[in-house]
Amino acid sequence: MDDRQYAKTKALKMLKAAGIALTKTEEENLEIAGFGLNDLLSTGLELITYVNTERCCAKELVLLPGQTCPEHRHPPGFGGPGKEETFRCRAGEVYLYVPGKATPAPKAKPPAGDEAHYTVRREIVLRPGEQYTLMPDTLHWFQGGPQGAIVSEFSTASHDDTDVFTHPGIIR
Amino acid sequence: MDDRQYAKTKALKMLKAAGIALTKTEEENLEIAGFGLNDLLSTGLELITYVNTERCCAKELVLLPGQTCPEHRHPPGFGGPGKEETFRCRAGEVYLYVPGKATPAPKAKPPAGDEAHYTVRREIVLRPGEQYTLMPDTLHWFQGGPQGAIVSEFSTASHDDTDVFTHPGIIR
Repeated sequence: MDDRQYAKTKALKMLKAAGIALTKTEEENLEIAGFGLNDLLSTGLELITYVNTERCCAKELVLLPGQTCPEHRHPPGFGGPGKEETFRCRAGEVYLYVPGKATPAPKAKPPAGDEAHYTVRREIVLRPGEQYTLMPDTLHWFQGGPQGAIVSEFSTASHDDTDVFTHPGIIR
Repeated sequence: MDDRQYAKTKALKMLKAAGIALTKTEEENLEIAGFGLNDLLSTGLELITYVNTERCCAKELVLLPGQTCPEHRHPPGFGGPGKEETFRCRAGEVYLYVPGKATPAPKAKPPAGDEAHYTVRREIVLRPGEQYTLMPDTLHWFQGGPQGAIVSEFSTASHDDTDVFTHPGIIR
């Protein structure tokens, strides 16, 4: 099984175990984001976009165990200050990093070799039922814990193609 | 046990059965909306507001079996066209009514005696994983099925106190 197929199967299994109901179409269209780095199980994200209009957006994000969504920000654009988003942990555990004083002995490490592209190091640990709101244009990255994580994202309109990543090799 | 306590206990039990994790604070602050009609188990709603900023909002709504959220709309205001919202069924079954051709033999009936205050009759049935997006200022009402329903609401900013209800006796 290749990495994409493995990620899809595993993500759907995690969603099912968490009791999150999906339509057949949503299951088939599960998005696998590898960010152009060709190392999906290390740097990647699986997601379902429930709704994304000009005004608001909701997604379900799945992080496999130890999988990292790489550092990025949502810049101003489309007549607004940029995307505002709330991450709510539904299952597992997620380690979120934001600007501020670096947390000593953090739970996550950036993907090996890519440390220079992970510049914010203040840690927020989210367990099921816990959430954190990120204001627009704030650098952030996050990683799934040992059992991975399912995270609901509630936000303003999403324009993924305008996200600014710290890693110069990333394509979204 | 009075109706409010019953509704709270039942709603928390339904959320737990659906695998939806809440913090202790969220459980304690579960909102019980009776809409001023003093008939909570017939006309009412239990909800948790996860986030509500100037730009976006997310809530978890619980409808007890047969419980109805009464007909209302979200008018323009606060510099915008009004609240846009997506209802996503997470558990149970919900019957949503919107403008359009009345559905023959609908699954829900308005609360007895209040029929005149329920004017839109086109039925949308939502089962787990199914969703529907309501544009601003659209009249709607909804009722939980035989096992009740849990519905995630993804929306623009929520200003419940400006909602316009069809029933003149309602206080929100």
